[in-house]
Amino acid sequence: MTYHSNFCPEFHKAVELIGKRWSGAIVREMMAGAVRFTDLMHAIPDISERMLCARLRALEEEGLVERRVLGVPMRVEYHLTEKGGDLRGVFAAVGAWADRWSDRPA
Amino acid sequence: MTYHSNFCPEFHKAVELIGKRWSGAIVREMMAGAVRFTDLMHAIPDISERMLCARLRALEEEGLVERRVLGVPMRVEYHLTEKGGDLRGVFAAVGAWADRWSDRPA
Repeated sequence: MTYHSNFCPEFHKAVELIGKRWSGAIVREMMAGAVRFTDLMHAIPDISERMLCARLRALEEEGLVERRVLGVPMRVEYHLTEKGGDLRGVFAAVGAWADRWSDRPA
Repeated sequence: MTYHSNFCPEFHKAVELIGKRWSGAIVREMMAGAVRFTDLMHAIPDISERMLCARLRALEEEGLVERRVLGVPMRVEYHLTEKGGDLRGVFAAVGAWADRWSDRPA
């Protein structure tokens, strides 16, 4: 019997983009609004400055996050682009699934 | 101004579970029904036997996938548990997002 693959490159890329170490947590932090680097350092337990820098840059390259330089004294903020903000439904679904299953035995 | 973290350990664990390298693609293959190891090897491009073994075992440990031994001659199948199948809504949301954004510039 021939097996028909359901593999979808676009799905594959998307799920690994949001699931890459810390990326989901970083994007989720920004769902509530723009954040500063130090906000993210405080919000996300155990992430290193180096890792946070790398992730923010990767999320910028993927078009999910935008970096903005503001005001005097200068401050830098990160916020979601339209593409990043459009993940709200995905994140709500992940959160609801986690709520349903996190306290049950595997 | 104090920053209030939105970090949620359950969300964090869930998003990295489905986004771990190849895991999303493997679970998605099973949404259509039980599959054999060789089906998955054919369906998912560039995955090694060793990696597929490791991922299936991890997904079993997380309670998303069940391994079943059937019939004469013996064959082994993998299928989603209730917890794994309950990811359908998450995967649909990821797929819809990918469809909306995959052909647009970042």
